[in-house]
Amino acid sequence: MKNILIINGPNLNLLGKRNVAIYGEISFETTLNELINNNQAKIDYKQSNHEGEIIDAIHNSTNYSGIVLNAGGYTHTSVAIRDAIEAVETPVVEVHISNIAGRESFRHESMISPVCVGCIFGFGMLGYQLAIDALLKLNK
Amino acid sequence: MKNILIINGPNLNLLGKRNVAIYGEISFETTLNELINNNQAKIDYKQSNHEGEIIDAIHNSTNYSGIVLNAGGYTHTSVAIRDAIEAVETPVVEVHISNIAGRESFRHESMISPVCVGCIFGFGMLGYQLAIDALLKLNK
Amino acid sequence: MKNILIINGPNLNLLGKRNVAIYGEISFETTLNELINNNQAKIDYKQSNHEGEIIDAIHNSTNYSGIVLNAGGYTHTSVAIRDAIEAVETPVVEVHISNIAGRESFRHESMISPVCVGCIFGFGMLGYQLAIDALLKLNK
Amino acid sequence: MKNILIINGPNLNLLGKRNVAIYGEISFETTLNELINNNQAKIDYKQSNHEGEIIDAIHNSTNYSGIVLNAGGYTHTSVAIRDAIEAVETPVVEVHISNIAGRESFRHESMISPVCVGCIFGFGMLGYQLAIDALLKLNK
Amino acid sequence: MKNILIINGPNLNLLGKRNVAIYGEISFETTLNELINNNQAKIDYKQSNHEGEIIDAIHNSTNYSGIVLNAGGYTHTSVAIRDAIEAVETPVVEVHISNIAGRESFRHESMISPVCVGCIFGFGMLGYQLAIDALLKLNK
Amino acid sequence: MKNILIINGPNLNLLGKRNVAIYGEISFETTLNELINNNQAKIDYKQSNHEGEIIDAIHNSTNYSGIVLNAGGYTHTSVAIRDAIEAVETPVVEVHISNIAGRESFRHESMISPVCVGCIFGFGMLGYQLAIDALLKLNK
Amino acid sequence: MKNILIINGPNLNLLGKRNVAIYGEISFETTLNELINNNQAKIDYKQSNHEGEIIDAIHNSTNYSGIVLNAGGYTHTSVAIRDAIEAVETPVVEVHISNIAGRESFRHESMISPVCVGCIFGFGMLGYQLAIDALLKLNK
Amino acid sequence: MKNILIINGPNLNLLGKRNVAIYGEISFETTLNELINNNQAKIDYKQSNHEGEIIDAIHNSTNYSGIVLNAGGYTHTSVAIRDAIEAVETPVVEVHISNIAGRESFRHESMISPVCVGCIFGFGMLGYQLAIDALLKLNK
Amino acid sequence: MKNILIINGPNLNLLGKRNVAIYGEISFETTLNELINNNQAKIDYKQSNHEGEIIDAIHNSTNYSGIVLNAGGYTHTSVAIRDAIEAVETPVVEVHISNIAGRESFRHESMISPVCVGCIFGFGMLGYQLAIDALLKLNK
Amino acid sequence: MKNILIINGPNLNLLGKRNVAIYGEISFETTLNELINNNQAKIDYKQSNHEGEIIDAIHNSTNYSGIVLNAGGYTHTSVAIRDAIEAVETPVVEVHISNIAGRESFRHESMISPVCVGCIFGFGMLGYQLAIDALLKLNK
Amino acid sequence: MKNILIINGPNLNLLGKRNVAIYGEISFETTLNELINNNQAKIDYKQSNHEGEIIDAIHNSTNYSGIVLNAGGYTHTSVAIRDAIEAVETPVVEVHISNIAGRESFRHESMISPVCVGCIFGFGMLGYQLAIDALLKLNK
Amino acid sequence: MKNILIINGPNLNLLGKRNVAIYGEISFETTLNELINNNQAKIDYKQSNHEGEIIDAIHNSTNYSGIVLNAGGYTHTSVAIRDAIEAVETPVVEVHISNIAGRESFRHESMISPVCVGCIFGFGMLGYQLAIDALLKLNK
Repeated sequence: MKNILIINGPNLNLLGKRNVAIYGEISFETTLNELINNNQAKIDYKQSNHEGEIIDAIHNSTNYSGIVLNAGGYTHTSVAIRDAIEAVETPVVEVHISNIAGRESFRHESMISPVCVGCIFGFGMLGYQLAIDALLKLNK
Repeated sequence: MKNILIINGPNLNLLGKRNVAIYGEISFETTLNELINNNQAKIDYKQSNHEGEIIDAIHNSTNYSGIVLNAGGYTHTSVAIRDAIEAVETPVVEVHISNIAGRESFRHESMISPVCVGCIFGFGMLGYQLAIDALLKLNK
Repeated sequence: MKNILIINGPNLNLLGKRNVAIYGEISFETTLNELINNNQAKIDYKQSNHEGEIIDAIHNSTNYSGIVLNAGGYTHTSVAIRDAIEAVETPVVEVHISNIAGRESFRHESMISPVCVGCIFGFGMLGYQLAIDALLKLNK
Repeated sequence: MKNILIINGPNLNLLGKRNVAIYGEISFETTLNELINNNQAKIDYKQSNHEGEIIDAIHNSTNYSGIVLNAGGYTHTSVAIRDAIEAVETPVVEVHISNIAGRESFRHESMISPVCVGCIFGFGMLGYQLAIDALLKLNK
Repeated sequence: MKNILIINGPNLNLLGKRNVAIYGEISFETTLNELINNNQAKIDYKQSNHEGEIIDAIHNSTNYSGIVLNAGGYTHTSVAIRDAIEAVETPVVEVHISNIAGRESFRHESMISPVCVGCIFGFGMLGYQLAIDALLKLNK
Repeated sequence: MKNILIINGPNLNLLGKRNVAIYGEISFETTLNELINNNQAKIDYKQSNHEGEIIDAIHNSTNYSGIVLNAGGYTHTSVAIRDAIEAVETPVVEVHISNIAGRESFRHESMISPVCVGCIFGFGMLGYQLAIDALLKLNK
Repeated sequence: MKNILIINGPNLNLLGKRNVAIYGEISFETTLNELINNNQAKIDYKQSNHEGEIIDAIHNSTNYSGIVLNAGGYTHTSVAIRDAIEAVETPVVEVHISNIAGRESFRHESMISPVCVGCIFGFGMLGYQLAIDALLKLNK
Repeated sequence: MKNILIINGPNLNLLGKRNVAIYGEISFETTLNELINNNQAKIDYKQSNHEGEIIDAIHNSTNYSGIVLNAGGYTHTSVAIRDAIEAVETPVVEVHISNIAGRESFRHESMISPVCVGCIFGFGMLGYQLAIDALLKLNK
Repeated sequence: MKNILIINGPNLNLLGKRNVAIYGEISFETTLNELINNNQAKIDYKQSNHEGEIIDAIHNSTNYSGIVLNAGGYTHTSVAIRDAIEAVETPVVEVHISNIAGRESFRHESMISPVCVGCIFGFGMLGYQLAIDALLKLNK
Repeated sequence: MKNILIINGPNLNLLGKRNVAIYGEISFETTLNELINNNQAKIDYKQSNHEGEIIDAIHNSTNYSGIVLNAGGYTHTSVAIRDAIEAVETPVVEVHISNIAGRESFRHESMISPVCVGCIFGFGMLGYQLAIDALLKLNK
Repeated sequence: MKNILIINGPNLNLLGKRNVAIYGEISFETTLNELINNNQAKIDYKQSNHEGEIIDAIHNSTNYSGIVLNAGGYTHTSVAIRDAIEAVETPVVEVHISNIAGRESFRHESMISPVCVGCIFGFGMLGYQLAIDALLKLNK
Repeated sequence: MKNILIINGPNLNLLGKRNVAIYGEISFETTLNELINNNQAKIDYKQSNHEGEIIDAIHNSTNYSGIVLNAGGYTHTSVAIRDAIEAVETPVVEVHISNIAGRESFRHESMISPVCVGCIFGFGMLGYQLAIDALLKLNK
């Protein structure tokens, strides 16, 4: 069974607790449990509000078949995370819970999309499942 | 069983025949057959190089559970297709075969993303399967 | 009695059926009947979701005293419709049902305004009546 | 009989006297007399070259059914007039004698269009008549 | 003898009939007859006001030695025609009758120039002859 | 006891009467009375919808310890008021009732902020009190 | 002897009193006396901080051979003053005391330069003399 | 007595030690002692050069009546801090010691202003006192 | 027999010697000999790396029927060469060996295209022949 | 008697010979003779189409009281001429014959204005006389 | 012997291990050993993927003669690191291994260059040696 | 011993004579003598104010191991010099005496950086020495 690393960036520790109008009422723990119970892959999980820790996590991903990355607010500004993704061979799928194209203009451009395998935006918590499916099928 | 309408826009009739470096060697017929054989949903398919016919197809989608739309080159310029998506209640998932964020700058912005349920970019033919999965799970 | 051609562009076949919050509940058929019954002018009507058909209709307008044109989503992108208006001698009045200056920024600029006789924006269905009045009075 | 306030902004006191190539040879007095004689509504008229006086006039419009406003050169720069229109409940119709979309680029954007009921551009003196018609019909 | 396909886009059916100040008084039929009588190549001709039909024509060009394309107003906006040119192997020469660099700013950039073999602008009807010459000499 | 001049620009005579959703229901007279009764400083008050009168008032401020200026809509466009502030030695504190950074983009930049001592935005009527406190404490 | 109208815009009543580092220590009264004593022309003088009064003064200039205009801060924003200059036949020479091209970027563009006969920037009070010379020599 | 959390971002640990020309000679410890001795509120203090720690501190602010935030250089770039402020219910007042509108252009726009209650810029150390006053009065 | 002046700008003396991947392996001498041997026109040739010498050459072109100009790197920046072309009556055809629209963005705009008779881009050395053909046919 | 150097840039050797609609029919020789005969100052004259020669001339100006510079097309692009003006102590007055603010947008900004003493635009040949007057009076 | 602090920012811990096409095959350890063995200066080394740690390191540099800083991806976005450099007196030389001007456009501007002593870009590992040389020679 | 060509562009003949505040008091002759006396390489030197001569010098550099180029004001505008650098195989190191990133915005972008081996900015005359060191070490 393959292993997948999910990395959630800043403020995503509050999922299901705050901003429920935008992000829904489901905490990420619930989502994570479902993903683990699906038994498709071994799932590891890292959440950090620190840009540097996200970079560290990407560097340390050599044993994973793929990364599902929701970089939160760093998505739109971080050249450093982009460079980290480019520097490793592990394929990265970018996920956003909300449809960023429909929000404020500064959220329309992602610095990291061009170096990811693919992008899945707007499907809520379902996006993480779709990203895992994609990584597993692409790896076959 | 639910029914899904796949709409492919301009030049996507050439999939698997030309530009194989970018889009791969699989013709859309092959992909379509796989999707139909998956038996998850009843799949209808429409391809057109004409912006107006894509609008007509979206208007006539009232009996479908969802639309998977790859608007091709119209993605970046068509206010009219955007308005059509907004005018109907059928949920639309936007798909692109290549990772448009990594190509020429005029492909970075999609006029239709903001009015779609969600977006799936860069996974090749697999993107259509992921989009159908998303529509079926969101509809549950 | 003079004759006027009304051309409605993409998605305007849905007037009164969808997006009623923006465009109101009156179908264009109702509006059209009122305009015809006013007996001010002979009214012909063309609606199309196809950019090319709108161009064709403008080319074929030589027998009309004027055109009332609501180009819908093509308003903001179509150099080709602009060129068609410039190429014919029939005066064209541009109409929009909603006040486009108060909507999304990509709707603020009209490619066709500079080549029209005049512009009437934001008065709902009443705009078509005002446009016909304008054409008749200007032609006197 | 309803009452309408026409406000003309800077330089419009020169209508018919200067710039006849652009604005025509008809003085606004002539136009005003015609509008008054139409007997559709009671017409009051205010012209000022002072931005502040136009704001004052808009503030003092509470007894009018509507305002026809040609803000002249202040159209493109005045946040203050825009705020005044937003602050009162009297509906305002924006009029321009020439087709501003076809002139210099700094005339293409109107600061006040987004807070007006509707816009009528390019019909010469006829625009004032159309604006009054619109206000009366919308008020019915 | 080689065969060449000339594709003229929107409004170019009016050549010689309207806008003679810009495009001259020669109808395209006259030009076409001269080109055919030159006996340099077998000339086929397609004119359409429909973006989709131009795309179809490019797709169906596999038997031609080259395409001479004047995309008219679609030149400046059509990603879809650009993609069609990139998708086929037939070399395309872009022609414009007028010198687009000397007209309105929105005509200065061509979406399709980067994927054409070469560009010939501003020589009136002579441009079609030059384009055919170029295609024949390049094919030698 | 020091004296402070409060200058309110265009449309602020309507405070508490209109736009209560944005500006609250408190008229400026109420606020002014509270400020006067605080007995911290002698308060003079000037409101004008005229850009020139605001400039005049700034010129005539030599006897004041400071100015609290809410320039309303002139904030975003007036080089002339900016020059007036630079020309006098009286310190000026800029106040806005609403949080201008959170409103329309044309309200994001203030022409006068760079020449003011400091800026206080978004605290409603309380902002005037904070500005007076600031001027008194800075003057000590 | 010809007559010339000098119009000074906002804040220029403070010349020689404030901002002496930028504008020098000479009051405009001193300059004016010198210009009058030169006996080249009859000089009238108008200073106003009100945009509307400047427009009025330009409208009332029909008996002058020329206008020397330093519009101060309105230079960079006033479409209305520009329209006033265009509306009268009196030739206008634009003067600025400082070299506006070397100051803040918002002072680099003048809205009124394109409709003036000529521009004289950066020569301090001498600029007014040069402008009068220019008007007299051009009128010969 | 209410409690307030002051958060100072990067480089603000150097206040009073370096850049005294811009920020003055008062260390933040001095300011903090004064604020504590005012006895208006219980004051807690957090300084960090790490973006992630500022986000953590905002997340952990649920027991505070308000936050006074000077985000230093992160002000202009951090979507992540903005999202953190939006995610919590604690009201945040933005403070800057210098008048950022009068410094380099990249300091003119604050990413976090739109999600703060209000903004206080340019009053030196006094700004922190004004911010506490504002929070206490708004909370009453 | 008519005479044509070919002017090649900076770095074009290296044609066929360097950058063969972009410009091909044919030296301009070879091309020139072919053009001269065609006997269509008398060909004179000028190459210079100096902007001023190109201007001089254009000034001295009064005895030529036309100029074929490849201004090299000066194409994108030289107002002075543009002014020279406008100042003489000799018709100028602009040629570029490579398709400049498909190269770096700073090569997309030509300062001189708007004042040339026409433009021929992307046909390699053949472009010079096409330009001569165009000049001879236009001169007939 | 003081000495003044007049430097005319590219294409100004054609004054009075070509483009008479824009620049008038007076050759610069005529203007130069008049300036010399005025006996106000010793006048030297340099014209060059070469940017480098203009820089050389500015470097060699140490014996002159001032320079009158019309840099022609280099005005809008030459950082090198700007640096030359900054490097010498001789005061430079910038002259343009036409009103550059009223011509194409690329002529609106001058690279050299910010480092000149002052600017005189739009007065035709008279501008050179005004510039000499200015230099003599400023030098007194 | 003087001491120098080398600070490497995010992802530079991977030098020589990944992206060898861009950054070469030499690990920074190798480079560091060479620099230490040069015996020109005492070299200390800090690498961090955390923006805050880089700021901390700059703050703690008071005992060093100079800093060699390669801020990696933070180069283009970090106002906070820029502020840290400005806040300390230790001279900082900016180094980049690759020539950032020749890579993606978002790498063209460095936020920190304007506050560094000097910049050395594109020389690979040699850049660190050059930077140390520069610091030692400037300090003499 | 290898040979290096130093090319200095416009105004750099004035080094040490003028603008000493920016460029220091050392003439380039002094610097040059030092470089020659270092005996590291044979140094040739070329200074020109003429863009074309700089291009010529680059073309004629085939016998040199490297070029040290300070293109002065042409740095920011010259496509032609850029093309010359690309056309030759001699490696070019770009040097600027001042730190161009900290000066006016039009000096921030260098047209030639992307085609140089590397860039050394801001180290005064020392930069030439560093550039020679770099060329010699890279050539080993």
